[in-house]
Amino acid sequence: MLRDEYDVSGQWQTTQTQGPAGSSLPAGDAVLRPGAHAAPAAEGKAGRRAWHWERWLVRRLWQWAGSPPVAVKLFGGHSVTPPAKEAVPAIHIKDRPALWKLFVDPLFQFGELYMHGRLETEGDLADVLERVFRGLEKRFHPGRMGWRWLLQPVNTLTRSRANAAHHYDLGNDFYRKWLDDQMVYTCAYFPRPGMTIEEAQVAKMEHVCRKLRLAPGMTVLEAGCGWGALALHMARHYGVHVTAYNVSREQIAFARERARREGLADRVTFVDDDWRNMRGSFDRFVSVGMLEHVGPPNYRLLGKVVACCLKSNGLGLIHSIGRNYAAPVNAWIRKYIFPGGYAPSLREMTAIFEPFNFSILDVENIRLHYAETLQHWRKRFEKVWDEVVQQFGETFARMWRFYLCCSQAAFQTGGLQLFQVVFAHGSNNSIPQTREDIYRRAALTADKARSASEQGVDA
Amino acid sequence: MLRDEYDVSGQWQTTQTQGPAGSSLPAGDAVLRPGAHAAPAAEGKAGRRAWHWERWLVRRLWQWAGSPPVAVKLFGGHSVTPPAKEAVPAIHIKDRPALWKLFVDPLFQFGELYMHGRLETEGDLADVLERVFRGLEKRFHPGRMGWRWLLQPVNTLTRSRANAAHHYDLGNDFYRKWLDDQMVYTCAYFPRPGMTIEEAQVAKMEHVCRKLRLAPGMTVLEAGCGWGALALHMARHYGVHVTAYNVSREQIAFARERARREGLADRVTFVDDDWRNMRGSFDRFVSVGMLEHVGPPNYRLLGKVVACCLKSNGLGLIHSIGRNYAAPVNAWIRKYIFPGGYAPSLREMTAIFEPFNFSILDVENIRLHYAETLQHWRKRFEKVWDEVVQQFGETFARMWRFYLCCSQAAFQTGGLQLFQVVFAHGSNNSIPQTREDIYRRAALTADKARSASEQGVDA
Repeated sequence: MLRDEYDVSGQWQTTQTQGPAGSSLPAGDAVLRPGAHAAPAAEGKAGRRAWHWERWLVRRLWQWAGSPPVAVKLFGGHSVTPPAKEAVPAIHIKDRPALWKLFVDPLFQFGELYMHGRLETEGDLADVLERVFRGLEKRFHPGRMGWRWLLQPVNTLTRSRANAAHHYDLGNDFYRKWLDDQMVYTCAYFPRPGMTIEEAQVAKMEHVCRKLRLAPGMTVLEAGCGWGALALHMARHYGVHVTAYNVSREQIAFARERARREGLADRVTFVDDDWRNMRGSFDRFVSVGMLEHVGPPNYRLLGKVVACCLKSNGLGLIHSIGRNYAAPVNAWIRKYIFPGGYAPSLREMTAIFEPFNFSILDVENIRLHYAETLQHWRKRFEKVWDEVVQQFGETFARMWRFYLCCSQAAFQTGGLQLFQVVFAHGSNNSIPQTREDIYRRAALTADKARSASEQGVDA
Repeated sequence: MLRDEYDVSGQWQTTQTQGPAGSSLPAGDAVLRPGAHAAPAAEGKAGRRAWHWERWLVRRLWQWAGSPPVAVKLFGGHSVTPPAKEAVPAIHIKDRPALWKLFVDPLFQFGELYMHGRLETEGDLADVLERVFRGLEKRFHPGRMGWRWLLQPVNTLTRSRANAAHHYDLGNDFYRKWLDDQMVYTCAYFPRPGMTIEEAQVAKMEHVCRKLRLAPGMTVLEAGCGWGALALHMARHYGVHVTAYNVSREQIAFARERARREGLADRVTFVDDDWRNMRGSFDRFVSVGMLEHVGPPNYRLLGKVVACCLKSNGLGLIHSIGRNYAAPVNAWIRKYIFPGGYAPSLREMTAIFEPFNFSILDVENIRLHYAETLQHWRKRFEKVWDEVVQQFGETFARMWRFYLCCSQAAFQTGGLQLFQVVFAHGSNNSIPQTREDIYRRAALTADKARSASEQGVDA
C-alpha cells in the first residue's frame, strides 16, 4: 500500500470491474468517488488487464505530476484512485501502448493520445487539465531558458510565414464557426460579469484604444492584425489611419474585403508582410497577440523596428501571452498548434524595450480574462463539433478541443499570463499623467461596446 | 572655429569681459544670449584667465556631454557659448583647478564643485541640469551592469543600517523643514493640477491602498516605513493591522511617538529591524521607497522573504525609483546622498518575482509625478535655506540643493523612473479582475485626501 503526500491519511484504491468488451466511455460528467467501484470500462479480456507493476508505475507517474486529485482508469478494468475526500474526475487510458507512451513522455503524449482517442477523461477535460496543471505547478520550479534556446529554431522570415500559415490559414470558415462575429482571436476583456464574447471583444478593443489614447487624425501602426477587427475598430470609432501588417494571406484577404465592404478602405491599409519590414513614422504602435510568434531571439530586432517607426512623442502597446518565469512551450502545442510559438516572461519581454531606452509606462496582467475567453470559445466549439468532425475529421476536432481546454486550464492555474504593456520613448514627456482617463467613462464605454457589438458585420 | 552637431549652421562664441576682481555671481535667472557679451564675472588678473587650449577642452567636454544648450563661463572672464538660437543659461567655473577636476571626472565633480561653491549656474540649477542630462542621454546608450556589480559593495545587514543612518538620521527636524506635514519622503501622486504636496502625498497613499485592495481586519507587512505615514494612514482609514520595519532609529522613534499620540499604537507595530528579518504571515505586503536601498544582489532574497510572509491569497506592492535600463548610480550621489543606493530597471526587478513564481499584475510608471514632488520639496527647501545653512553649514545646504535639483532633472528627462508594481503568488486566483475599482470613486478619494491632509497632525 502506497501512502503519499496528497493526503497522508488516505489510502490508494485499486478497483477492478468487468464490463462489456471494448465499451467506449460516455463523455459525460461521471466522476469516481474514492473507494467506489469504477464505471464499467473493462476490455473484458483478462490478458489485456494492466499488470501489477504497471499500476505501480501509474502511481509513481501520478506522484511525479504533483499528486493531482484525479483518478486513473486503465484498460482492462483497473482503476487507480488516489486517496481523496471528494469525488475526483478520471483519466482513462485505453490500451497498453498508450500507457507506455505516457510513461516515456507524459507532457507530450497526453495531448497526442487524447487527440487519437486513446486517452479520455471522465469529467470535463478542462477541469481535469486544471487539476493536473496545479499538481505540475508544485513540481516544476522557475528556471531560466538558458541553453534551451539552442534547441529551438529561430523564427526567420520564411519560417514565420509558414508558422502563421499552419495556424491561421486553416480557413476563415473554421474560425468563423466558433469565434465572435468580428473574428477576434485574442484574449477578450470582461469588465462586468455575464458579458457575451462579442461584448467582451469590443471591450478589449476599447481598452486597448483607451490605453493608446487615440485621437482623430493619428497614424497607427499595427503588427499582426489578425482578421483586422482592431484596425477597423480604431479607424471607425477613433478616426485614425491604420497601417496593419500580417503574414497570413487568408486573414489579410478577409480583412481587406471587410474594410472595403464597410467603407473604411481609405483609412485602413492592410499590408501582407512581416513585422520586420515595417517602415514609416507613426503616432501609435500596437500589437495584439503577435509577440507569441516572434520568439525571444527576435525581441531586440522588434524593439529596433518599433523604435524606428514610433514618433518621439508616440505611444506603443504590446498585448501578449506571457509567463511568470521563462519556460519552454509544451512540445505538443509546438508541434500541432503553434510551431515557433513562445510565451515570454516579463523579464524576457524587456529585451524589446531596454536596449532602445523605451519607458515601460503601464503593465496590466489579465490572465483570468483569457481563461474566460477560452471558456466561451470552447462552448461555441462544442456546438459546432459535428461540423468540424465532418470537415476536418475527428482527430483534428479532438486536437482543437484539447488545445482550447489546456490553454484554459493554463490561464486558470497561472501557468500562462496575459500582459498588456504600454510604452513610450524614454525622452517622451507627453505621456499620460495618470490612468484615470482609461476608466473615467466606463459606463459610456459599456454602451459603446454594446452598440459596436450590435453593429458587428458578420452577425 | 569649431562647428558642431548641436547646430551646424551656428558658430561658437568665445567672449571675454573685464569685471570687478573676485565678484561672485548673482543666483538670479540671468541668461547668456548667443554672441552677447557675458555678464561681468572676470577675476581681473590676466594671469588667471583660461588659456586657449583650456577653452578648446571645454568645447570638447561640451561635445562629449551631447552638446547641451548651455554656455560655459570660465574664471578670468572668458565665456564659451554654443551656437544656439535662443538664450541659454550658463555654468560658471570659478577657478582653474575646478576646471581640471571637471575635465578628469565630470560626472562626479559637477556636484562636488557645486557643493563647494566653485561651480555656479546662471539660471535655475534644475533647468541647467535638465539641459545637461538631455545631452548626456543622447551620448550614453543602454548597457548592462554586468561585471560592474563587482565594483560595488553588497548591502549587508550592517552596511544597510549604516547607509540608512547616513541619510535618514540627519535629524527629523531637518526633514520636517521641507517635507510635507506627514513627513512622506517618497514620490507623491498628483492626479489633478495645482495640488499641494500635502494633498499629493495623501493621494499617493490612497493610490497605494487602493491598489492593495485593503479591507478592514487585514494584516499588512510594510518594509521600510520611513516616518510611518503610510502605516498610520492604512490603519486609520482602512482598519488594517500593520507591522512596519525600518532600520533608521530616528524614523522609528518618530513613528512610534506619532502612533501613540494618535491612538493607533494598538493597530500599528513599528519594528526597528531589517527587512531580512521579517517573519509572519500577512494578507498584504507593501514597500514604498525601500527597494532603492536593497541592491540587486539582494533582490532574490527579498523575493524569498516576501514569498514566505505573504499569504497564498495575498497581494503585494513595491514602489521604487527605477530606470529604463540598467546603469550605475552617479558616483556623487552614492558618496554624499545614498551610499548603497541603486535604481533598478524592470528587468532587474524581476529577480524579486520570477524565482518565486510571483505574478506581476500591474506596473505603473509615474516618473513625472516625482519631478513635480521634487519641485515642491525644492521650493520649500529654498524657503528654509538660511536655517539649513546656519544649522549644517553652506556646503551641506548646497549639497542638498544639488541633490534635489539633479533628481528633479533626472525624473524630468527620463533618466529615472518611478515604478509601482503590484504582484501576487502565481497560484492566487483571488486577484482583482480589473483596475476599475482603483479609479471608480476618484472624486470621493479627492475629498478623503483633502480631509486627511487637513487632519495632518504635524500641521
